[in-house]
Amino acid sequence: MTKNIAMRILYDGTHYHGWQRQKNGITVQQVLEDTLSRLTGETISVTGCSRTDAGVHALDYVLNFRSHTTIPPDRIPYAVNHLLPDDISAVSAWEVPPDFNARFSARGKRYIYRILNARMQNPFLTRYSWHLPYPLDAKVICAAAPMLEGKHDFSAFMAAGGDQKTTVRTVTVCRAEVSGEQNEIICVTVEADAFLYNMVRIMTGTLAEIGMGRIDPDDLPAIIKSGDRKRCGLTAPPQGLFLKKVYYDLG
Amino acid sequence: MTKNIAMRILYDGTHYHGWQRQKNGITVQQVLEDTLSRLTGETISVTGCSRTDAGVHALDYVLNFRSHTTIPPDRIPYAVNHLLPDDISAVSAWEVPPDFNARFSARGKRYIYRILNARMQNPFLTRYSWHLPYPLDAKVICAAAPMLEGKHDFSAFMAAGGDQKTTVRTVTVCRAEVSGEQNEIICVTVEADAFLYNMVRIMTGTLAEIGMGRIDPDDLPAIIKSGDRKRCGLTAPPQGLFLKKVYYDLG
Repeated sequence: MTKNIAMRILYDGTHYHGWQRQKNGITVQQVLEDTLSRLTGETISVTGCSRTDAGVHALDYVLNFRSHTTIPPDRIPYAVNHLLPDDISAVSAWEVPPDFNARFSARGKRYIYRILNARMQNPFLTRYSWHLPYPLDAKVICAAAPMLEGKHDFSAFMAAGGDQKTTVRTVTVCRAEVSGEQNEIICVTVEADAFLYNMVRIMTGTLAEIGMGRIDPDDLPAIIKSGDRKRCGLTAPPQGLFLKKVYYDLG
Repeated sequence: MTKNIAMRILYDGTHYHGWQRQKNGITVQQVLEDTLSRLTGETISVTGCSRTDAGVHALDYVLNFRSHTTIPPDRIPYAVNHLLPDDISAVSAWEVPPDFNARFSARGKRYIYRILNARMQNPFLTRYSWHLPYPLDAKVICAAAPMLEGKHDFSAFMAAGGDQKTTVRTVTVCRAEVSGEQNEIICVTVEADAFLYNMVRIMTGTLAEIGMGRIDPDDLPAIIKSGDRKRCGLTAPPQGLFLKKVYYDLG
Protein backbone atom coordinates (compact mmCIF):
# COMPACT_ATOMS: atom_id res chain seq x y z
CA MET A 1 0.00 0.00 0.00
CA THR A 2 1.25 3.46 -0.82
CA LYS A 3 2.05 5.63 2.15
CA ASN A 4 2.35 9.39 2.10
CA ILE A 5 5.41 10.14 4.20
CA ALA A 6 6.49 13.54 5.51
CA MET A 7 10.08 14.18 6.50
CA ARG A 8 11.82 17.05 8.27
CA ILE A 9 15.33 17.86 7.11
CA LEU A 10 17.91 20.61 7.41
CA TYR A 11 20.48 21.60 4.87
CA ASP A 12 23.41 23.89 4.26
CA GLY A 13 22.56 25.32 0.84
CA THR A 14 26.08 26.58 0.05
CA HIS A 15 26.93 23.90 -2.50
CA TYR A 16 23.49 23.48 -4.07
CA HIS A 17 21.71 25.20 -6.94
CA GLY A 18 18.72 25.64 -4.69
CA TRP A 19 15.96 23.20 -3.83
CA GLN A 20 14.29 22.50 -7.14
CA ARG A 21 15.54 19.81 -9.52
CA GLN A 22 17.07 21.32 -12.65
CA LYS A 23 19.18 20.23 -15.58
CA ASN A 24 22.27 22.26 -14.77
CA GLY A 25 23.70 21.86 -11.30
CA ILE A 26 22.96 19.64 -8.35
CA THR A 27 19.96 20.51 -6.17
CA VAL A 28 18.70 19.42 -2.76
CA GLN A 29 15.54 17.90 -4.27
CA GLN A 30 17.59 15.80 -6.65
CA VAL A 31 19.88 14.50 -3.90
CA LEU A 32 16.87 13.53 -1.79
CA GLU A 33 15.02 11.89 -4.66
CA ASP A 34 18.11 9.92 -5.63
CA THR A 35 18.78 8.90 -2.02
CA LEU A 36 15.18 7.88 -1.25
CA SER A 37 14.96 6.00 -4.56
CA ARG A 38 18.14 4.13 -3.71
CA LEU A 39 16.83 3.32 -0.23
CA THR A 40 13.39 2.11 -1.30
CA GLY A 41 14.16 0.64 -4.72
CA GLU A 42 11.35 2.78 -6.12
CA THR A 43 11.41 5.97 -8.18
CA ILE A 44 10.63 8.56 -5.54
CA SER A 45 9.33 12.08 -6.28
CA VAL A 46 9.65 14.56 -3.47
CA THR A 47 7.47 17.63 -2.85
CA GLY A 48 9.19 20.35 -0.85
CA CYS A 49 7.64 23.10 1.25
CA SER A 50 9.64 25.87 -0.42
CA ARG A 51 11.74 26.38 -3.52
CA THR A 52 14.77 27.93 -1.87
CA ASP A 53 17.33 29.63 -4.11
CA ALA A 54 20.95 28.66 -4.60
CA GLY A 55 22.93 29.29 -1.41
CA VAL A 56 19.86 29.60 0.85
CA HIS A 57 19.80 27.31 3.92
CA ALA A 58 17.05 25.47 5.77
CA LEU A 59 16.97 24.82 9.52
CA ASP A 60 13.64 23.02 9.41
CA TYR A 61 12.40 22.01 5.98
CA VAL A 62 9.39 19.73 5.39
CA LEU A 63 8.91 17.51 2.35
CA ASN A 64 6.65 14.60 1.47
CA PHE A 65 6.79 11.64 -0.88
CA ARG A 66 4.75 8.54 -1.70
CA SER A 67 6.28 5.10 -1.29
CA HIS A 68 5.45 1.40 -0.91
CA THR A 69 8.39 0.95 1.43
CA THR A 70 8.02 -1.40 4.39
CA ILE A 71 10.64 0.56 6.35
CA PRO A 72 8.81 2.11 9.32
CA PRO A 73 8.69 5.89 8.65
CA ASP A 74 10.45 6.73 11.92
CA ARG A 75 13.45 4.64 10.85
CA ILE A 76 13.81 6.35 7.45
CA PRO A 77 15.87 9.33 8.75
CA TYR A 78 18.53 6.99 10.17
CA ALA A 79 18.70 5.05 6.93
CA VAL A 80 18.87 8.10 4.64
CA ASN A 81 21.41 9.89 6.82
CA HIS A 82 23.87 7.11 6.04
CA LEU A 83 23.42 7.84 2.35
CA LEU A 84 23.08 11.65 2.38
CA PRO A 85 26.05 14.01 2.07
CA ASP A 86 27.20 15.89 5.20
CA ASP A 87 25.36 19.08 4.27
CA ILE A 88 21.86 17.55 4.33
CA SER A 89 20.45 15.79 7.38
CA ALA A 90 17.08 14.14 8.00
CA VAL A 91 15.59 14.77 11.44
CA SER A 92 12.31 12.86 11.52
CA ALA A 93 9.71 11.21 9.29
CA TRP A 94 6.13 10.14 9.86
CA GLU A 95 3.09 9.02 7.88
CA VAL A 96 0.66 11.78 6.86
CA PRO A 97 -2.85 11.71 5.35
CA PRO A 98 -3.00 11.02 1.59
CA ASP A 99 -3.87 14.64 0.77
CA PHE A 100 -0.97 16.19 2.70
CA ASN A 101 1.25 18.26 0.40
CA ALA A 102 4.33 19.86 1.95
CA ARG A 103 3.94 22.90 -0.28
CA PHE A 104 0.22 23.51 -0.53
CA SER A 105 -0.75 22.36 2.97
CA ALA A 106 1.62 24.91 4.54
CA ARG A 107 -0.21 27.65 6.46
CA GLY A 108 2.82 29.83 7.01
CA LYS A 109 6.58 30.02 7.10
CA ARG A 110 9.23 31.77 9.12
CA TYR A 111 12.54 32.87 7.64
CA ILE A 112 15.50 34.47 9.34
CA TYR A 113 18.11 36.61 7.61
CA ARG A 114 21.51 37.26 9.18
CA ILE A 115 23.56 40.40 8.55
CA LEU A 116 27.15 40.65 9.79
CA ASN A 117 27.76 44.36 10.37
CA ALA A 118 31.48 44.50 11.17
CA ARG A 119 34.48 46.02 9.48
CA MET A 120 36.04 42.61 8.94
CA GLN A 121 34.59 39.45 7.49
CA ASN A 122 34.18 36.53 9.91
CA PRO A 123 35.38 33.25 8.35
CA PHE A 124 32.72 31.31 10.27
CA LEU A 125 29.91 33.44 8.84
CA THR A 126 31.03 33.92 5.22
CA ARG A 127 28.60 31.29 3.97
CA TYR A 128 25.90 32.13 6.52
CA SER A 129 25.48 35.90 6.51
CA TRP A 130 25.57 39.10 4.48
CA HIS A 131 28.70 41.03 5.36
CA LEU A 132 28.13 44.80 5.42
CA PRO A 133 31.33 46.54 6.55
CA TYR A 134 30.01 50.12 6.92
CA PRO A 135 28.13 50.92 10.14
CA LEU A 136 24.37 50.41 10.00
CA ASP A 137 22.02 52.14 12.42
CA ALA A 138 20.62 48.99 14.03
CA LYS A 139 18.18 50.94 16.20
CA VAL A 140 16.54 52.46 13.13
CA ILE A 141 16.38 49.03 11.48
CA CYS A 142 14.77 47.46 14.57
CA ALA A 143 12.21 50.27 14.74
CA ALA A 144 11.40 50.09 11.02
CA ALA A 145 11.03 46.30 10.66
CA PRO A 146 7.50 46.02 12.18
CA MET A 147 6.29 48.62 9.64
CA LEU A 148 6.46 45.78 7.10
CA GLU A 149 3.93 43.71 9.06
CA GLY A 150 0.31 43.47 7.93
CA LYS A 151 -1.81 42.32 5.01
CA HIS A 152 -0.63 44.15 1.92
CA ASP A 153 0.00 43.81 -1.76
CA PHE A 154 3.77 43.21 -1.49
CA SER A 155 4.52 43.42 -5.20
CA ALA A 156 7.16 46.10 -4.51
CA PHE A 157 9.03 43.38 -2.61
CA MET A 158 8.97 40.79 -5.38
CA ALA A 159 11.55 39.82 -7.96
CA ALA A 160 10.43 38.92 -11.47
CA GLY A 161 9.93 35.19 -11.90
CA GLY A 162 7.18 34.36 -9.44
CA ASP A 163 4.12 32.40 -10.60
CA GLN A 164 1.61 33.53 -8.00
CA LYS A 165 -2.06 34.43 -8.64
CA THR A 166 -2.10 37.25 -6.12
CA THR A 167 0.63 39.40 -4.63
CA VAL A 168 -1.26 40.03 -1.39
CA ARG A 169 0.48 38.47 1.60
CA THR A 170 -0.03 38.70 5.36
CA VAL A 171 3.22 39.33 7.21
CA THR A 172 2.53 38.36 10.82
CA VAL A 173 6.05 39.00 12.14
CA CYS A 174 8.78 41.28 10.89
CA ARG A 175 11.38 42.15 13.45
CA ALA A 176 15.09 42.81 13.67
CA GLU A 177 17.26 41.88 16.64
CA VAL A 178 20.86 42.65 17.47
CA SER A 179 23.27 40.12 18.99
CA GLY A 180 26.96 39.16 19.08
CA GLU A 181 29.79 40.20 21.39
CA GLN A 182 30.14 43.52 19.60
CA ASN A 183 26.46 43.82 18.57
CA GLU A 184 27.68 42.93 15.10
CA ILE A 185 24.87 40.53 14.16
CA ILE A 186 21.53 41.88 12.93
CA CYS A 187 18.98 39.14 12.53
CA VAL A 188 15.74 39.82 10.63
CA THR A 189 12.83 37.44 11.28
CA VAL A 190 9.90 37.39 8.85
CA GLU A 191 6.84 35.23 9.21
CA ALA A 192 3.99 35.24 6.67
CA ASP A 193 1.21 33.05 5.31
CA ALA A 194 3.21 32.77 2.07
CA PHE A 195 6.03 34.62 0.36
CA LEU A 196 6.63 36.20 -3.01
CA TYR A 197 9.79 35.45 -4.96
CA ASN A 198 12.80 36.96 -3.11
CA MET A 199 10.46 38.75 -0.71
CA VAL A 200 12.54 38.27 2.46
CA ARG A 201 15.76 39.18 0.66
CA ILE A 202 14.22 42.40 -0.71
CA MET A 203 12.71 43.25 2.69
CA THR A 204 16.15 42.73 4.27
CA GLY A 205 17.86 44.75 1.55
CA THR A 206 15.38 47.55 2.18
CA LEU A 207 15.95 47.43 5.95
CA ALA A 208 19.71 47.51 5.36
CA GLU A 209 19.36 50.64 3.20
CA ILE A 210 17.19 52.17 5.92
CA GLY A 211 20.07 51.45 8.32
CA MET A 212 22.41 53.24 5.91
CA GLY A 213 20.12 56.26 5.75
CA ARG A 214 19.41 55.74 2.05
CA ILE A 215 15.73 54.97 2.53
CA ASP A 216 13.53 56.89 5.01
CA PRO A 217 11.57 54.43 7.18
CA ASP A 218 8.60 56.82 7.13
CA ASP A 219 8.34 56.15 3.40
CA LEU A 220 7.69 52.41 3.93
CA PRO A 221 3.87 52.64 3.77
CA ALA A 222 4.12 54.63 0.54
CA ILE A 223 6.71 52.21 -0.88
CA ILE A 224 4.41 49.25 -0.15
CA LYS A 225 1.48 51.10 -1.73
CA SER A 226 3.47 52.08 -4.81
CA GLY A 227 4.14 48.46 -5.79
CA ASP A 228 7.37 49.84 -7.26
CA ARG A 229 10.31 47.45 -6.89
CA LYS A 230 12.76 50.26 -7.65
CA ARG A 231 11.82 52.13 -4.46
CA CYS A 232 12.94 49.17 -2.31
CA GLY A 233 16.49 48.28 -1.44
CA LEU A 234 18.78 45.83 -3.18
CA THR A 235 18.04 42.12 -2.96
CA ALA A 236 20.14 40.82 -0.07
CA PRO A 237 22.39 37.92 -1.14
CA PRO A 238 21.19 34.34 -0.60
CA GLN A 239 23.71 33.05 1.94
CA GLY A 240 22.22 35.06 4.85
CA LEU A 241 18.78 33.48 4.44
CA PHE A 242 17.51 30.50 6.44
CA LEU A 243 14.10 28.85 6.30
CA LYS A 244 13.44 28.56 10.03
CA LYS A 245 10.04 26.91 10.34
CA VAL A 246 7.03 25.78 8.28
CA TYR A 247 3.59 25.76 9.87
CA TYR A 248 0.82 23.27 9.13
CA ASP A 249 -2.64 22.78 10.56
CA LEU A 250 -2.69 19.64 12.63
CA GLY A 251 -5.21 16.92 11.72
CA MET B 1 63.57 50.49 10.93
CA THR B 2 62.31 47.07 11.88
CA LYS B 3 58.99 47.05 13.67
CA ASN B 4 57.62 44.18 15.71
CA ILE B 5 53.97 43.95 14.71
CA ALA B 6 51.29 41.92 16.46
CA MET B 7 48.12 40.91 14.63
CA ARG B 8 44.87 39.32 15.75
CA ILE B 9 43.25 36.92 13.32
CA LEU B 10 40.54 34.28 13.26
CA TYR B 11 40.44 31.19 11.13
CA ASP B 12 38.32 28.20 10.22
CA GLY B 13 40.83 25.37 10.49
CA THR B 14 38.82 22.83 8.46
CA HIS B 15 40.96 22.98 5.36
CA TYR B 16 44.38 23.42 7.00
CA HIS B 17 46.95 21.00 8.31
CA GLY B 18 47.05 23.03 11.50
CA TRP B 19 48.96 26.20 12.29
CA GLN B 20 52.59 25.23 11.90
CA ARG B 21 54.38 25.33 8.56
CA GLN B 22 55.17 21.85 7.29
CA LYS B 23 56.28 20.18 4.09
CA ASN B 24 53.14 18.19 3.38
CA GLY B 25 49.93 20.13 3.34
CA ILE B 26 48.97 23.78 3.56
CA THR B 27 49.00 25.43 7.00
CA VAL B 28 47.71 28.70 8.42
CA GLN B 29 51.23 29.92 9.22
CA GLN B 30 52.34 29.33 5.64
CA VAL B 31 49.36 31.21 4.19
CA LEU B 32 50.04 34.17 6.50
CA GLU B 33 53.76 34.22 5.82
CA ASP B 34 53.16 34.07 2.07
CA THR B 35 50.49 36.79 2.25
CA LEU B 36 52.51 39.14 4.47
CA SER B 37 55.62 38.59 2.33
CA ARG B 38 53.61 39.44 -0.79
CA LEU B 39 52.20 42.55 0.90
CA THR B 40 55.51 43.91 2.25
CA GLY B 41 57.92 42.65 -0.40
CA GLU B 42 60.01 41.13 2.41
CA THR B 43 60.43 37.54 3.58
CA ILE B 44 58.18 37.52 6.63
CA SER B 45 58.41 34.92 9.42
CA VAL B 46 55.40 34.72 11.67
CA THR B 47 55.34 33.57 15.32
CA GLY B 48 51.96 32.25 16.44
CA CYS B 49 50.53 32.01 19.95
CA SER B 50 49.60 28.34 19.61
CA ARG B 51 50.34 25.40 17.34
CA THR B 52 46.77 24.33 16.69
CA ASP B 53 46.24 20.91 15.10
CA ALA B 54 44.63 20.16 11.76
CA GLY B 55 40.92 20.99 11.84
CA VAL B 56 41.13 23.12 15.01
CA HIS B 57 39.71 26.66 14.76
CA ALA B 58 40.69 30.01 16.24
CA LEU B 59 38.28 32.77 17.22
CA ASP B 60 41.00 35.09 18.48
CA TYR B 61 44.55 34.15 17.54
CA VAL B 62 47.57 36.42 18.10
CA LEU B 63 50.74 36.34 16.05
CA ASN B 64 53.72 38.65 15.58
CA PHE B 65 56.25 39.33 12.86
CA ARG B 66 59.10 41.73 12.15
CA SER B 67 58.97 43.99 9.13
CA HIS B 68 60.40 47.18 7.62
CA THR B 69 57.05 47.99 6.04
CA THR B 70 55.92 51.62 5.90
CA ILE B 71 52.27 50.54 5.91
CA PRO B 72 50.79 51.78 9.22
CA PRO B 73 50.12 48.69 11.36
CA ASP B 74 46.42 49.48 11.76
CA ARG B 75 46.00 49.39 7.95
CA ILE B 76 47.65 45.99 7.56
CA PRO B 77 44.49 43.94 8.35
CA TYR B 78 42.56 45.66 5.54
CA ALA B 79 45.39 45.04 3.10
CA VAL B 80 45.95 41.39 4.02
CA ASN B 81 42.23 40.59 4.06
CA HIS B 82 42.15 41.35 0.34
CA LEU B 83 44.84 38.72 -0.18
CA LEU B 84 43.80 36.08 2.37
CA PRO B 85 41.40 33.22 1.59
CA ASP B 86 37.85 33.37 2.99
CA ASP B 87 38.63 31.09 5.93
CA ILE B 88 41.26 33.37 7.50
CA SER B 89 40.53 36.94 8.51
CA ALA B 90 42.72 39.58 10.13
CA VAL B 91 40.99 41.68 12.79
CA SER B 92 43.59 44.19 13.99
CA ALA B 93 47.32 44.87 14.07
CA TRP B 94 49.51 47.14 16.18
CA GLU B 95 53.16 47.74 16.98
CA VAL B 96 54.51 45.90 20.03
CA PRO B 97 57.80 46.15 21.98
CA PRO B 98 60.80 44.41 20.34
CA ASP B 99 60.75 41.56 22.87
CA PHE B 100 57.06 40.68 22.41
CA ASN B 101 56.67 37.08 21.28
CA ALA B 102 53.13 35.86 20.58
CA ARG B 103 53.98 32.41 21.93
CA PHE B 104 56.30 33.03 24.87
CA SER B 105 54.76 36.29 26.09
CA ALA B 106 51.35 34.63 26.49
CA ARG B 107 50.24 34.38 30.13
CA GLY B 108 47.26 32.15 29.48
CA LYS B 109 44.79 30.87 26.95
CA ARG B 110 41.15 29.96 26.80
CA TYR B 111 39.80 27.18 24.60
CA ILE B 112 36.23 26.10 24.06
CA TYR B 113 35.15 22.68 22.87
CA ARG B 114 31.70 22.06 21.41
CA ILE B 115 29.87 18.73 21.61
CA LEU B 116 26.67 18.14 19.64
CA ASN B 117 24.70 15.60 21.64
CA ALA B 118 21.76 14.80 19.36
CA ARG B 119 20.63 11.69 17.55
CA MET B 120 21.11 13.36 14.17
CA GLN B 121 24.07 15.24 12.79
CA ASN B 122 23.53 18.96 12.14
CA PRO B 123 24.96 20.03 8.76
CA PHE B 124 25.85 23.46 10.17
CA LEU B 125 27.93 21.94 12.96
CA THR B 126 29.68 19.04 11.18
CA ARG B 127 32.92 20.98 10.89
CA TYR B 128 32.51 22.77 14.22
CA SER B 129 31.58 20.15 16.79
CA TRP B 130 31.95 16.55 17.95
CA HIS B 131 28.76 14.68 17.20
CA LEU B 132 27.86 12.16 19.91
CA PRO B 133 24.51 10.55 19.07
CA TYR B 134 23.92 8.60 22.31
CA PRO B 135 22.53 10.56 25.27
CA LEU B 136 25.12 12.05 27.60
CA ASP B 137 24.30 13.01 31.17
CA ALA B 138 25.03 16.72 30.83
CA LYS B 139 24.38 17.40 34.53
CA VAL B 140 27.10 14.96 35.53
CA ILE B 141 29.49 16.52 32.99
CA CYS B 142 28.78 20.04 34.28
CA ALA B 143 29.35 18.92 37.86
CA ALA B 144 32.58 17.07 37.03
CA ALA B 145 34.28 19.73 34.87
CA PRO B 146 35.47 21.97 37.77
CA MET B 147 37.20 18.95 39.30
CA LEU B 148 39.83 19.43 36.58
CA GLU B 149 40.66 22.92 37.82
CA GLY B 150 43.78 23.57 39.87
CA LYS B 151 47.56 23.33 39.66
CA HIS B 152 48.46 19.75 38.84
CA ASP B 153 50.80 17.56 36.88
CA PHE B 154 48.46 16.95 33.93
CA SER B 155 50.57 14.31 32.21
CA ALA B 156 47.59 11.91 32.20
CA PHE B 157 45.93 14.47 29.88
CA MET B 158 48.79 14.70 27.39
CA ALA B 159 49.34 12.99 24.07
CA ALA B 160 52.82 11.91 23.06
CA GLY B 161 54.64 14.52 21.02
CA GLY B 162 54.85 17.51 23.34
CA ASP B 163 58.21 19.18 23.95
CA GLN B 164 57.55 20.77 27.35
CA LYS B 165 60.00 20.90 30.27
CA THR B 166 57.32 20.38 32.90
CA THR B 167 53.88 18.83 32.76
CA VAL B 168 52.54 20.94 35.64
CA ARG B 169 49.81 23.32 34.50
CA THR B 170 47.38 25.60 36.31
CA VAL B 171 43.83 25.22 35.03
CA THR B 172 42.00 28.34 36.20
CA VAL B 173 38.66 27.54 34.54
CA CYS B 174 37.11 24.24 33.53
CA ARG B 175 33.38 24.34 33.09
CA ALA B 176 30.71 22.79 30.90
CA GLU B 177 27.54 24.57 29.83
CA VAL B 178 24.46 23.35 28.01
CA SER B 179 22.68 25.35 25.31
CA GLY B 180 20.64 24.91 22.13
CA GLU B 181 16.90 24.66 21.53
CA GLN B 182 16.90 21.02 22.67
CA ASN B 183 19.82 21.38 25.12
CA GLU B 184 21.82 19.52 22.49
CA ILE B 185 25.02 21.62 22.72
CA ILE B 186 27.52 20.95 25.49
CA CYS B 187 30.28 23.53 25.52
CA VAL B 188 33.43 22.93 27.58
CA THR B 189 35.55 25.99 28.45
CA VAL B 190 39.11 25.47 29.66
CA GLU B 191 41.46 28.25 30.67
CA ALA B 192 45.04 27.63 31.81
CA ASP B 193 48.44 29.29 31.97
CA ALA B 194 49.60 26.90 29.26
CA PHE B 195 48.47 23.61 27.75
CA LEU B 196 50.00 20.22 27.09
CA TYR B 197 49.66 18.57 23.71
CA ASN B 198 45.99 17.61 23.11
CA MET B 199 45.17 18.51 26.72
CA VAL B 200 41.77 20.12 26.06
CA ARG B 201 40.76 17.35 23.69
CA ILE B 202 41.66 14.65 26.26
CA MET B 203 39.90 16.59 29.03
CA THR B 204 36.80 16.82 26.81
CA GLY B 205 37.01 13.14 25.88
CA THR B 206 37.23 12.29 29.56
CA LEU B 207 34.22 14.47 30.41
CA ALA B 208 32.26 12.85 27.55
CA GLU B 209 33.03 9.38 28.94
CA ILE B 210 31.96 10.61 32.36
CA GLY B 211 28.67 11.65 30.72
CA MET B 212 28.35 8.14 29.27
CA GLY B 213 28.93 6.58 32.69
CA ARG B 214 32.18 4.94 31.58
CA ILE B 215 34.38 6.98 33.93
CA ASP B 216 33.38 7.78 37.49
CA PRO B 217 33.82 11.52 38.19
CA ASP B 218 34.92 10.69 41.73
CA ASP B 219 37.99 9.02 40.20
CA LEU B 220 39.20 12.27 38.61
CA PRO B 221 41.61 13.23 41.41
CA ALA B 222 43.14 9.74 41.30
CA ILE B 223 43.31 9.82 37.49
CA ILE B 224 45.17 13.15 37.59
CA LYS B 225 47.54 11.80 40.25
CA SER B 226 48.17 8.57 38.36
CA GLY B 227 49.62 10.39 35.34
CA ASP B 228 48.23 7.48 33.34
CA ARG B 229 46.90 8.50 29.92
CA LYS B 230 45.02 5.20 29.61
CA ARG B 231 42.73 6.06 32.52
CA CYS B 232 41.44 9.18 30.70
CA GLY B 233 38.88 9.20 27.92
CA LEU B 234 39.50 9.20 24.19
CA THR B 235 40.99 12.28 22.56
CA ALA B 236 38.01 14.30 21.30
CA PRO B 237 38.31 15.04 17.55
CA PRO B 238 39.83 18.36 16.43
CA GLN B 239 36.86 20.02 14.75
CA GLY B 240 35.05 20.81 18.03
CA LEU B 241 37.99 22.81 19.41
CA PHE B 242 38.32 26.61 19.20
CA LEU B 243 41.08 28.81 20.57
CA LYS B 244 38.89 31.48 22.17
CA LYS B 245 41.33 33.95 23.72
CA VAL B 246 45.02 34.52 24.47
CA TYR B 247 46.04 36.60 27.46
CA TYR B 248 49.08 38.86 27.66
CA ASP B 249 50.36 41.19 30.34
CA LEU B 250 49.95 44.74 29.18
CA GLY B 251 53.02 46.98 29.00
